[in-house]
Amino acid sequence: MAGKLLDTIQYPNDIRKLMPEQLPQLAAELREFIIDIVSVKEGHLGASLGVVELTIALHYVFDTPNDLLVWDVGHQAYGHKILTGRKDNFDTNRQLGGISGFPKRSESEYDTFGTGHSSTSISAALGMAIASQIKGDTAKNHIAVIGDASIASGMAFEGLNHAGVTDANLLVILNDNAIGIDPSVGALKHYLTQVKDGRNPRQNNMIKSLNFDYTGPVDGHDFTTLLKELTKLKNTKGPKFLHIITTKGKGLKQAEEDQVKYHAPGKFDKLTGEVLAVADSHLPPKYQDVFGLTLVELAQQNPKIIGITPAMPSGSSMKFMMEAFPQRAIDVGIAEQHAVTLAAGMATQGMVVFCNIYSTFLQRAYDQVIHDVALQNLPVIFCLDRAGLVGEDGATHHGVFDIAYLNCIPNLIIFAPLNESELRNILYTAQLGLEHPIAIRYPRGRSQNVNWQLPFLKIEMGKAVPLKTGTDVAVLSTGTIGNNVAISISESEKSSLFSHYHFGFVKPLDEDALHAIFKSHKKIITVEDGTVIGGFGSSIIFFAAKNNYSLEIKTLGVPDSFIEHGSTSELQHYCNIDVKSLSDIFSAC
Amino acid sequence: MAGKLLDTIQYPNDIRKLMPEQLPQLAAELREFIIDIVSVKEGHLGASLGVVELTIALHYVFDTPNDLLVWDVGHQAYGHKILTGRKDNFDTNRQLGGISGFPKRSESEYDTFGTGHSSTSISAALGMAIASQIKGDTAKNHIAVIGDASIASGMAFEGLNHAGVTDANLLVILNDNAIGIDPSVGALKHYLTQVKDGRNPRQNNMIKSLNFDYTGPVDGHDFTTLLKELTKLKNTKGPKFLHIITTKGKGLKQAEEDQVKYHAPGKFDKLTGEVLAVADSHLPPKYQDVFGLTLVELAQQNPKIIGITPAMPSGSSMKFMMEAFPQRAIDVGIAEQHAVTLAAGMATQGMVVFCNIYSTFLQRAYDQVIHDVALQNLPVIFCLDRAGLVGEDGATHHGVFDIAYLNCIPNLIIFAPLNESELRNILYTAQLGLEHPIAIRYPRGRSQNVNWQLPFLKIEMGKAVPLKTGTDVAVLSTGTIGNNVAISISESEKSSLFSHYHFGFVKPLDEDALHAIFKSHKKIITVEDGTVIGGFGSSIIFFAAKNNYSLEIKTLGVPDSFIEHGSTSELQHYCNIDVKSLSDIFSAC
Repeated sequence: MAGKLLDTIQYPNDIRKLMPEQLPQLAAELREFIIDIVSVKEGHLGASLGVVELTIALHYVFDTPNDLLVWDVGHQAYGHKILTGRKDNFDTNRQLGGISGFPKRSESEYDTFGTGHSSTSISAALGMAIASQIKGDTAKNHIAVIGDASIASGMAFEGLNHAGVTDANLLVILNDNAIGIDPSVGALKHYLTQVKDGRNPRQNNMIKSLNFDYTGPVDGHDFTTLLKELTKLKNTKGPKFLHIITTKGKGLKQAEEDQVKYHAPGKFDKLTGEVLAVADSHLPPKYQDVFGLTLVELAQQNPKIIGITPAMPSGSSMKFMMEAFPQRAIDVGIAEQHAVTLAAGMATQGMVVFCNIYSTFLQRAYDQVIHDVALQNLPVIFCLDRAGLVGEDGATHHGVFDIAYLNCIPNLIIFAPLNESELRNILYTAQLGLEHPIAIRYPRGRSQNVNWQLPFLKIEMGKAVPLKTGTDVAVLSTGTIGNNVAISISESEKSSLFSHYHFGFVKPLDEDALHAIFKSHKKIITVEDGTVIGGFGSSIIFFAAKNNYSLEIKTLGVPDSFIEHGSTSELQHYCNIDVKSLSDIFSAC
Repeated sequence: MAGKLLDTIQYPNDIRKLMPEQLPQLAAELREFIIDIVSVKEGHLGASLGVVELTIALHYVFDTPNDLLVWDVGHQAYGHKILTGRKDNFDTNRQLGGISGFPKRSESEYDTFGTGHSSTSISAALGMAIASQIKGDTAKNHIAVIGDASIASGMAFEGLNHAGVTDANLLVILNDNAIGIDPSVGALKHYLTQVKDGRNPRQNNMIKSLNFDYTGPVDGHDFTTLLKELTKLKNTKGPKFLHIITTKGKGLKQAEEDQVKYHAPGKFDKLTGEVLAVADSHLPPKYQDVFGLTLVELAQQNPKIIGITPAMPSGSSMKFMMEAFPQRAIDVGIAEQHAVTLAAGMATQGMVVFCNIYSTFLQRAYDQVIHDVALQNLPVIFCLDRAGLVGEDGATHHGVFDIAYLNCIPNLIIFAPLNESELRNILYTAQLGLEHPIAIRYPRGRSQNVNWQLPFLKIEMGKAVPLKTGTDVAVLSTGTIGNNVAISISESEKSSLFSHYHFGFVKPLDEDALHAIFKSHKKIITVEDGTVIGGFGSSIIFFAAKNNYSLEIKTLGVPDSFIEHGSTSELQHYCNIDVKSLSDIFSAC
């Protein structure tokens, strides 16, 4: 299409050549561009549509990249990427070798700080602002853009609490759309709603109490307002706060109306906005749904069951429990630390608490797992969703460290099911009453079998499961990656050489089984979808050393580097744990 | 002394038999009792003196242990312990086999939740309160007592933010004394000071904004007020907040006047209050002072150096840097998450950031180390104070997991110096410019040599250091526990059999040295003062397996259980890493 403004834009300097009255047209074109590509290539949609005007206004008013701009979480940074040199390869977004779905320092000087996990932007931008002060650069601006779900996380409060006593050049922009991935929760959200609605206080006194120069709330889709306020704030020194109101999904009717679905809708019709249906009735269920639906089943029988999710009711399928038992399922918002200690408090009173946290986000509550749960040996049931390689979300989101960081914690049981039935049965077993806390890790995505709602079976604690018996090589796997192993062995010409054992329990290890395995095989291969350092394979090696076994042990898993984005199977291939790589390795035995 | 009220008190029921007008006398006696014992046995003083009236009033008004009381951090819980069945063994406080210095569930039903790390109380008590709701117990009260330093931590905000949208029976008592271990910092502290001073707003609107029923501020040393307000709040449903003003160290003049020193003063004269001087001029410096004083030396030469501490300026000796370069050393309060990402933000701007966090508290910022620092490969210098066994603070405070939880993080260098000189030199080396982040772990307490301020030497990255050459057994140690090893070997009759290598670098391992060691010895013993699972020894075993070495490897360190309190040497003995245990092990080789 000729005459498009967006065609003239490669970098923010090009935007600055436009007249203010041209910006709405640029915004419309940018929205269209995002919708065109995300409708086909998938990705996060709603957040970026909501900040199109803000994105343009920020780059128009501020001197990026000299002025430093941090996007919290980064779901909303597609417009930013397109306007900062990445328009022509935006169609590679989230693909192997393509650009990241999140801001990334190595990708562009405009990405001043890599994000992905929430609520880091205030701390990062304040650090930059204090560095500028120390260097004597008083003109540079430092801007954090953060949503109302993210600002309710404790880490953001810590940043605000510090910033308020500095005179650093920090601008915090609260992008208030009343939703994160799911609708925002908590007292702060209620308070912000009152501010927005013009109820007392009209001005945001809570933020003013933290010593910020507060402006707002203003319409975040109105360029006249945005340019005026940003220009004023650009020339205001010290910590300041701009509260803007936006609509997530702005400009696409369906995305505005169903903001949860259109957070990351998958492929959709860019003209009608309709999400393209995936014919999934014949597919195995997602592990998430196995968790969520099984929890409801169990909760119907066991009145002590409570579910907790930090801001992931849809993603984790805790929503089923929230619908069935609204008093017994809680979304605490982006508050992993609180979620874990809340669970611990409930467990002291005899409740059976399923605390579902994505593996990568449990890193946020590591101390609470150690100090509040394991040290007190409280039988909290942690469900670690999205364990292992998560695919397109990439390096910030892989759940590959969990075995390593949990394995050293006394009292804690670690379990990784092989498939949907075993996930279902460990959930059942855990709620019967455990003497210890347990972490159950399972991956994103679909499980193995369509027919999954079988009668519950109790899992015996600490037992490994032999899946196949062979003569020479024992392959020990944990978790769903064992399905790759099983296929590789079954397809191998040397299949008879291989035994395969599933170690659901990473801790405690089934030492009886291990003794038998080590005594009856010539070589051991371990396979996991987490980091090899400190992981399941390391535990097997430790067992061997402790017992003076000198068999060769090969450990397969995620190497000691951060794994970028790509499809899960591509990333498994990179780590040599896809079926093809495993087959090659087994053939070479 | 006859006629003492305290003599009649074993449990709170005994307090409830007193008339309200007798409580001030009980308070005076309780203070005297605390001072008597802490002056001789050491421990935390100021915090407990400050809440004597509150402690008595809470147990007087509420039906403990049926009503559930959580003490945040727990430094202030001595009075609580004395009044809940532990008066007669309070003189065993913090000693091996004695009572813990912190609330502990296994010790008493009155200790409803174990504490030690700050800011957990609101989450824990809310969890209990929601559990009560679900059980249909509407009469039970759930109380969190939290200080103004702890409530400024993000986790506490998360708890408040959730509590405000529940109708759970939660009472949060803010014990506002304007100090944690060091004076409180941050915008919230300024705000609370305004509230206290009667400046606008007189009422605490920030808390009211979070939907709490707010009462205060009131005098926390006045029984009439406390009894009246607590009785009223006991009969108020839903989330409520009582803001009391107290003086830390109340009742001991010196403790009121020098609140930092009297937080945990060591032995003191109970009559005069004077701290008993320790003749330390001939002793080696504390590692803390080696850190703090060296940082100042380096900062004088390197203008890019910045220091960050989360609320431990005195404990970490960051205070020296804060005094010398107030613009370049920052106490961010109890905000480990913010501290780490602030450091990351500064590092993006080329600053050389020394982020000093106790090993056990870095658990609070684990995700930030991974996601904000290591993933972006920003050369932040983490100084992990109080690594290893910390002694009397016990299970909540040991820094024994750090190697395990850091070892799996790509890009991160991990270093543990042998002594003060090596600590000094790694600080020097790190600020010359590293290509990666580094974690430097060192213990609490005194180092090895009096004469420590030697000229700086650059440490070669990744190199192990041979300390002694022998014929048969190679002992590989990391960190200061290597000094125990050296003594044990030197005193051994079989000394000639033993080689000793110091692995300052836990990561990257000196693989060249390891190959040479494995090829020239018959047996390997590893020694560390952290958890063996996932620790240094595990890395050595992993190296051996990877390279098909089949030597026997024995790993010594902290076993897979939580280690209680006691002197550091007692706890080293428990873990078989004191000089005597090592000697016995070496003799048996």
